[in-house]
Amino acid sequence: MSGDFQYVVVEHDGPYATIWLNHPDRLNVLSRQMMLELTQAFHDVGAGSSVGVILAAKGRLFSAGHDFAEMADKSLAEVRSLFETCTTMMTALQAMPQPVVARVHALATGAGCQLVASADLAVAADEATFATPGGKGGLFCTTPLVAVGRLIGRRRALEMGMSGDAIDAQTAAAWGLVNEVVPLGELEFATDALLVRVTRGSVESKTIGKRAFYEQMDLDLPAAYDLATRVMADGALIADAQESIAAFIEKRSPRWRTETV
Amino acid sequence: MSGDFQYVVVEHDGPYATIWLNHPDRLNVLSRQMMLELTQAFHDVGAGSSVGVILAAKGRLFSAGHDFAEMADKSLAEVRSLFETCTTMMTALQAMPQPVVARVHALATGAGCQLVASADLAVAADEATFATPGGKGGLFCTTPLVAVGRLIGRRRALEMGMSGDAIDAQTAAAWGLVNEVVPLGELEFATDALLVRVTRGSVESKTIGKRAFYEQMDLDLPAAYDLATRVMADGALIADAQESIAAFIEKRSPRWRTETV
Amino acid sequence: MSGDFQYVVVEHDGPYATIWLNHPDRLNVLSRQMMLELTQAFHDVGAGSSVGVILAAKGRLFSAGHDFAEMADKSLAEVRSLFETCTTMMTALQAMPQPVVARVHALATGAGCQLVASADLAVAADEATFATPGGKGGLFCTTPLVAVGRLIGRRRALEMGMSGDAIDAQTAAAWGLVNEVVPLGELEFATDALLVRVTRGSVESKTIGKRAFYEQMDLDLPAAYDLATRVMADGALIADAQESIAAFIEKRSPRWRTETV
Repeated sequence: MSGDFQYVVVEHDGPYATIWLNHPDRLNVLSRQMMLELTQAFHDVGAGSSVGVILAAKGRLFSAGHDFAEMADKSLAEVRSLFETCTTMMTALQAMPQPVVARVHALATGAGCQLVASADLAVAADEATFATPGGKGGLFCTTPLVAVGRLIGRRRALEMGMSGDAIDAQTAAAWGLVNEVVPLGELEFATDALLVRVTRGSVESKTIGKRAFYEQMDLDLPAAYDLATRVMADGALIADAQESIAAFIEKRSPRWRTETV
Repeated sequence: MSGDFQYVVVEHDGPYATIWLNHPDRLNVLSRQMMLELTQAFHDVGAGSSVGVILAAKGRLFSAGHDFAEMADKSLAEVRSLFETCTTMMTALQAMPQPVVARVHALATGAGCQLVASADLAVAADEATFATPGGKGGLFCTTPLVAVGRLIGRRRALEMGMSGDAIDAQTAAAWGLVNEVVPLGELEFATDALLVRVTRGSVESKTIGKRAFYEQMDLDLPAAYDLATRVMADGALIADAQESIAAFIEKRSPRWRTETV
Repeated sequence: MSGDFQYVVVEHDGPYATIWLNHPDRLNVLSRQMMLELTQAFHDVGAGSSVGVILAAKGRLFSAGHDFAEMADKSLAEVRSLFETCTTMMTALQAMPQPVVARVHALATGAGCQLVASADLAVAADEATFATPGGKGGLFCTTPLVAVGRLIGRRRALEMGMSGDAIDAQTAAAWGLVNEVVPLGELEFATDALLVRVTRGSVESKTIGKRAFYEQMDLDLPAAYDLATRVMADGALIADAQESIAAFIEKRSPRWRTETV
């Protein structure tokens, strides 16, 4: 499927897929074309048989964020369409049924930082940095801060948003923007290891669980429990759940309908 | 009251109560019977005269979570009833008027981890660990992650939920799942000390404050302030509030209508 | 404008304003008069030409919180009016169009702690401490915990609220209640440095971004993205945004319509 893409590469390695931002000459800028291709890749890989996904980037930066040239001297309708394309991409990323781990080797800024925040999990190299830089310019990073603010909280998100300054990878980990920080030489290995850890077990169960997780986090506590209680009861009756229960009782290893490791 | 319980023990020590999970042979599994008994204990102690509550567990683990045997070959109605029983228990725990401190000496997993997250506060021993393990099996921990996700945030909750791996007590403290970590030999002492700290002052005022805290955290900011402003004004007129104000002005110790230390 | 105030001083220093709590003899207690004056100062400075604001306090404490004397033997209508005055003040603080940094040199307690939490950012001296002390008295800090709970989360907010004990500045930073902790001798310098960092760039853009940030954080994810996407598209068409885009493309420095550094 990746043959159709200009700025995106999709690689398959057994049960895993890697979706690459691949426009290194322009620092993986999130041009409209790049965003449309990523959205398509998220849909394609999401509908495919991969059980886990890495989101990575080729070249010197992870991503330089929006392509400012596409916002110069445009109509409101054009600019609105551009940001809607971006939001559609972020939503498609989070809607992928598989666990998605962002692997960040260098600066992820603006909508590039939002892309990292919109993955389920993230591993960063020591030298990676993260910014929502619009605050020190003329276009505040309002949409990136939707995703970033939900991970790091109000006070730290406002510091990033208002200052526009980058934070380092250790700070990103301390604030909950990334799960793990490792030396650059171990980045691939650590990301693979996390991906393996989060893709064990039943694929169907995890798909149900991921969707319900995001849905319930947006609700108040009683509504969240209403939803989660129904989802969990339904989920206990799928074949993989009954198999895991039977295996537990019979003290044997479970055999999933779809299994990875 | 504890005489009626098979798997739960309630102990009273002056103004404090300890509610024990007491089914060590089965690792304090949250069977339907255990959940019904805990719910009853939460109601009983909640309606009683205790001013603070410890939630503790006997035996090798804190709790192994749900009893898988009760989900094998059951109808949807039966399984749904089981999870509703669980949600009712968690809700009853949080609805107790007293401060509740979970004292966690070892693994709390699945709904056992949710139980810890549903207490107001938690102290853990160094060797305690915490997991939502369904992600590596066939039944994702959707309901536990309602409570856990509201304490540790989206990114870390997804790591726990998707991997199913346990985190250690230090990590739990860093992520806000427990308030404090101490050596096992100091666990009782540290929990008691925290319980004393959080049960000083007016019982009535704290009851009002706890309920309003959980209610307002589920609202947007203007609605939260509307609620909190009314509750705080009403709360300033109760006898204990007026006594604390009078004592402050007269530079003397207050005398609560109900007081513990 | 500060000539009209009894307990508040407003100082202007170039593009920045400092709003001082100035009732040191009474530890900057948030009496009705102090709250009305602060509210007026927030409106005045908010409507003025300052591009960044420091909220500071003169004397031994940052603020002792509410004035208990004003709650003694009062009617419900009077007490309710008092707390509504307080909520109006906190809302006016957050509604200021400029970035506001609280500079905390010593204890901020009760509504004083809420005031720090309601600023956009905060820098604390090593010896500063923070408390919501009502929990160990007769009047639980329900309204302060609206603001504090949204920064530090449920578990830690309940520990502060139920115990009433103060936390130190390092803990406040670890929990996200303040952005930075420095030695007292560096507090002014560090606060100024943060204020400069968060007031670079376009004033208009930052005003739009701050308001949208708080609005979207109160919404569920789809609604947050709907709002943010519209705000960001509109924001990309203001003169300062187009100037920043043009400057980027032409590889020159931007010239904001309103600029500070």
